Amino acid sequence: MELLLRRTAGDFGFETMNETGETIRFDAAASIGGQGYGFRPMESLAASLAACASIDVLLILKKQKIEPSNFEIKIDAKRVDEVPAIFECIQLNFLIESDADQSKIERAINLSLDKYCSVAKILNPTCRITSSLTLFNNQ
Amino acid sequence: MELLLRRTAGDFGFETMNETGETIRFDAAASIGGQGYGFRPMESLAASLAACASIDVLLILKKQKIEPSNFEIKIDAKRVDEVPAIFECIQLNFLIESDADQSKIERAINLSLDKYCSVAKILNPTCRITSSLTLFNNQ
Repeated sequence: MELLLRRTAGDFGFETMNETGETIRFDAAASIGGQGYGFRPMESLAASLAACASIDVLLILKKQKIEPSNFEIKIDAKRVDEVPAIFECIQLNFLIESDADQSKIERAINLSLDKYCSVAKILNPTCRITSSLTLFNNQ
Repeated sequence: MELLLRRTAGDFGFETMNETGETIRFDAAASIGGQGYGFRPMESLAASLAACASIDVLLILKKQKIEPSNFEIKIDAKRVDEVPAIFECIQLNFLIESDADQSKIERAINLSLDKYCSVAKILNPTCRITSSLTLFNNQ
């Protein structure tokens, strides 16, 4: 995997490009001179966890012919109060609209976070990851 | 820190929004149905490391009145060949244009990766992070 980061704005504004030309913009916290140009790196890390788990969950459900009509995650993350300010905990609140059994979706979430998700595996040694599910049954 | 992820395209296309309204788009690998809608989660994780280290390095240099006229990182990451496919190693190749001493910039890079960078601290237990510096001296 190859990526290129370039400073493109202000003191700490960066653009990062992947091999297919997609970009992510980053910036520092306002307290040290960030200007809201993009995500803070720890925000994009928490977002990466949610996206990685989402792919797993939807893939597991797809194999069971379950296709949620709406899929969201509200992410709540808390950092420790020291430097480096790693995550103390990340809570993934899944908000899913589907007529499938709650137990099947809960099982997919647990399989992702405990077994398949690469980002969760990387975060696990230093951060507590928890989840909840709110299922909107559209039957 | 709060973020919201929503499925917005295809089977695995997501948009994640932070508290200031910035967004990152994600997608899965093409091999499982991704359509190139955005970053893969492990790409954004590697990008987060580079952005986090960049903020540290530029902040350390700024305190020494060193302001590089160009700042880039070429990121090379390798994943393990198993599931979960975490990173085996990430190499950050810093390409910096400045008239400052190479040793001062190398010291800033090492301070970031060994001491200050939150994303490096999270990755360290499971991944080898290395760096190189190419300095373009514009004197």
